[in-house]
Amino acid sequence: MKKENCIFCRIASGEIPSATVYEDEDFKAILDLGPAAPGHTLVIPKNHSDNLLCVDSDTAAKALGVIAKVAKAVKEAMGCDGINVVQNNGEAAGQTVMHLHFHIIPRYNNDKVQIGWEPGKPADGELENTASLIRDRLR
Amino acid sequence: MKKENCIFCRIASGEIPSATVYEDEDFKAILDLGPAAPGHTLVIPKNHSDNLLCVDSDTAAKALGVIAKVAKAVKEAMGCDGINVVQNNGEAAGQTVMHLHFHIIPRYNNDKVQIGWEPGKPADGELENTASLIRDRLR
Repeated sequence: MKKENCIFCRIASGEIPSATVYEDEDFKAILDLGPAAPGHTLVIPKNHSDNLLCVDSDTAAKALGVIAKVAKAVKEAMGCDGINVVQNNGEAAGQTVMHLHFHIIPRYNNDKVQIGWEPGKPADGELENTASLIRDRLR
Repeated sequence: MKKENCIFCRIASGEIPSATVYEDEDFKAILDLGPAAPGHTLVIPKNHSDNLLCVDSDTAAKALGVIAKVAKAVKEAMGCDGINVVQNNGEAAGQTVMHLHFHIIPRYNNDKVQIGWEPGKPADGELENTASLIRDRLR
């Protein structure tokens, strides 16, 4: 389903033009207009969901195969050393367009792209307590 | 298939203990030992592949549904504002364990986690040239 006034729904339908690298019945892959590096590609499901937390099961089942296929093509085309796949849920996580999308980002040894974090040092027992909190929601 | 001496294969099989939040026939989700934030979870397919570029189609079809389910549970359990899903391919992209895994990272408004990039400004025609390079590998 399309969502009214959603820019990625309009790009996915072709109503707004884009630098398209791949398209099938369910997905469109386009170049990001503000790339982390040349070849930075977005994989966009045509069926609207705001983010991964509310994705439909059909899109979930198909998306990763498309992402893998496009990521391989990006790596070959750009000759990069690695690839990040990044998917942001919510403004706090850096999501700016509220339509599920997956960033495919070409990476090079010693480049300046910052996708990482300072590893924390959990206190004794903290991991087990946290795991229990999450497990309770998965029963 | 398990790969010999792969630490995530050994965690997935239970040979090495972990703070497990979810497990089914094909996947195990565990807490990261050096978390970006408490609740930082890794979703690990039991079938070994080095990364997403060589994942088998069965794992690809099942993984995102599991990731979505675990991400929802992490968000509810931690009460965070957002979630990043990050998947690194190759050392240049920050991959340290060469067994496919997906990071689920709790995010908070104005936290210090750095998952972002300086948006580039492609020159005229650059996006279309790059898109053509990638499209050629997807024909």
